Amino acid sequence: MTQSAADALEQIKSVSPALARYRSDTIVENLWKNDILTARDRSLVTVAAMIQRGQPIELAYQIGLALDNGVTAAEVSETIAHLSFYSGWGNGTNAVDVAAQIFADRGIDPDQLADANEDLMPLDEPAEANRIAAVEGLVGPAFSRLADLTTQVLFRDLWLRPALSPRDRSLVTMTALITANLPAQIVFHINKAMDNGMTQGQVAEVITHLAFYAGWPNAMNAANVAKDVFAKRET
Amino acid sequence: MTQSAADALEQIKSVSPALARYRSDTIVENLWKNDILTARDRSLVTVAAMIQRGQPIELAYQIGLALDNGVTAAEVSETIAHLSFYSGWGNGTNAVDVAAQIFADRGIDPDQLADANEDLMPLDEPAEANRIAAVEGLVGPAFSRLADLTTQVLFRDLWLRPALSPRDRSLVTMTALITANLPAQIVFHINKAMDNGMTQGQVAEVITHLAFYAGWPNAMNAANVAKDVFAKRET
Amino acid sequence: MTQSAADALEQIKSVSPALARYRSDTIVENLWKNDILTARDRSLVTVAAMIQRGQPIELAYQIGLALDNGVTAAEVSETIAHLSFYSGWGNGTNAVDVAAQIFADRGIDPDQLADANEDLMPLDEPAEANRIAAVEGLVGPAFSRLADLTTQVLFRDLWLRPALSPRDRSLVTMTALITANLPAQIVFHINKAMDNGMTQGQVAEVITHLAFYAGWPNAMNAANVAKDVFAKRET
Repeated sequence: MTQSAADALEQIKSVSPALARYRSDTIVENLWKNDILTARDRSLVTVAAMIQRGQPIELAYQIGLALDNGVTAAEVSETIAHLSFYSGWGNGTNAVDVAAQIFADRGIDPDQLADANEDLMPLDEPAEANRIAAVEGLVGPAFSRLADLTTQVLFRDLWLRPALSPRDRSLVTMTALITANLPAQIVFHINKAMDNGMTQGQVAEVITHLAFYAGWPNAMNAANVAKDVFAKRET
Repeated sequence: MTQSAADALEQIKSVSPALARYRSDTIVENLWKNDILTARDRSLVTVAAMIQRGQPIELAYQIGLALDNGVTAAEVSETIAHLSFYSGWGNGTNAVDVAAQIFADRGIDPDQLADANEDLMPLDEPAEANRIAAVEGLVGPAFSRLADLTTQVLFRDLWLRPALSPRDRSLVTMTALITANLPAQIVFHINKAMDNGMTQGQVAEVITHLAFYAGWPNAMNAANVAKDVFAKRET
Repeated sequence: MTQSAADALEQIKSVSPALARYRSDTIVENLWKNDILTARDRSLVTVAAMIQRGQPIELAYQIGLALDNGVTAAEVSETIAHLSFYSGWGNGTNAVDVAAQIFADRGIDPDQLADANEDLMPLDEPAEANRIAAVEGLVGPAFSRLADLTTQVLFRDLWLRPALSPRDRSLVTMTALITANLPAQIVFHINKAMDNGMTQGQVAEVITHLAFYAGWPNAMNAANVAKDVFAKRET
């Protein structure tokens, strides 16, 4: 069963009164109330970070909060499917186990989720041609099977499912990569997020939010990478 | 208790019908049936990735599948011992907790496992001399104690235990390093795996398999590193 | 409930007799008995590594051992608060859940913990000015909010709390960064640990200890980074 916010706070207080203060004053009353990002966006980011980290206690709490903040069950569901590829299958399995309980508790049934086979959105052919060329350059002909799976499964299927908007897919992908500290991929996906409509200020705030949920060093590394992306896009 | 495959699939379907489709169509019917790697090798790789990730639900399922796919209990046991050093002791403890239950359920008793002290295989002295020189260059004299432990515990004991073949030790080590995204060590251990008999095609397929279990970005990074290793070995 | 050391050893033996041998001979009788670091320091390091890794079984065992080795409950508590920022909030939540049970079992109540608001230690203004300049150079003006939070929450509050000495904060921070393989931050925090009184030999032994608890590859990477820090400080 998911802990209530009050019970969680009491438990934190029993181990570290200071940590309970940081939670109330710094995180709940300050970070989450800053409107550079909506509460819905902060919830998507936090859920994605917890999926990447495989942290079931905090993930359960954050999925509940996300549903309260306007992330739909279908979007939680599709975020788990999406990150099963970016964070690894075992992180997906962990998140399924947590979400299944919450969906059962809240009476969320499969009617509210996207079909296994949705009508796909149209492909942006020129961007996709660039992406394929970049992957082929990166991995070379010995990995043609990996490159093909990337194209068929990720970019001609998963990313085109309307169950999560391209902007939100970018948001959760970028989050997972920052949380896992993968600088090469962070560059690609910050650019994709901004191509999909996120502003520089929003990207910076995602990274600031993640200082708390992915740990300070990962946020500092991502900020350093983002600084260069921002500079390149401005010229 | 370990979830059955059917129960696991039902649970996934209750959270994401799309993810259940990917599991059945892309992973079970396509990835695992490709014969570039045997099912036994895929199981060793997947178990190693889940040990590195510390994901108990998926690990329990994968250890069961590995035993069904011809990995012996002694090999599962020795993989856990081996990765306790490469992935860290806590990952070993996690895996012990998961495996103890499965061994008990299947009536696997200590007779079927390798002794604590086995007769060791002979050491490849010239390769070992090169390895020692490389480590000393890497860490310098302030770390002579770490270098000595590396030699005594890992290379004059663990790696020489016949309970897991050198080729299989390479396979699970390479997997752990790809899953943890450690490029410097990936280079050394891809080379060692190929010296121990793995082909370029098999190494590429290990990385492709790990796209699913270690997450796509880690596979892309490893493919980029492997591309250069392959090129160097060909010249 | 926390496993006893004897039960843990029996469970390890049931899965891998070799791993039980390494635990007894290499880790308990050799590593932990080496007096380059005190048992108290080794416990702080091991607890910090397990918090960073989010490994509840081993963390429970290690928190109990730390309390037996002279780490106070207040120091365990403050280590969890500190690493909630460096390792990420979900790692903090995990550790709170584990520690709450141990504190309850041992009758440790909030009187024994530091207040949420302690009188802070004085700030080292010149060192702080250097740190701020370094952060601003790293992240640039788009991340002024992140830089401000770093200053206000971490360096003008958390680090100045007397509940954990600066030297011990450095020890657990350095440990978390080595365990997470974050080379850029390892450089800064090895220097800070040595400024806070740790010797070169002690830093080298922390890394050697972490070969076991954070995995061999992370220790080798950290040793390589530390080698250069040591060389720079000597000139």
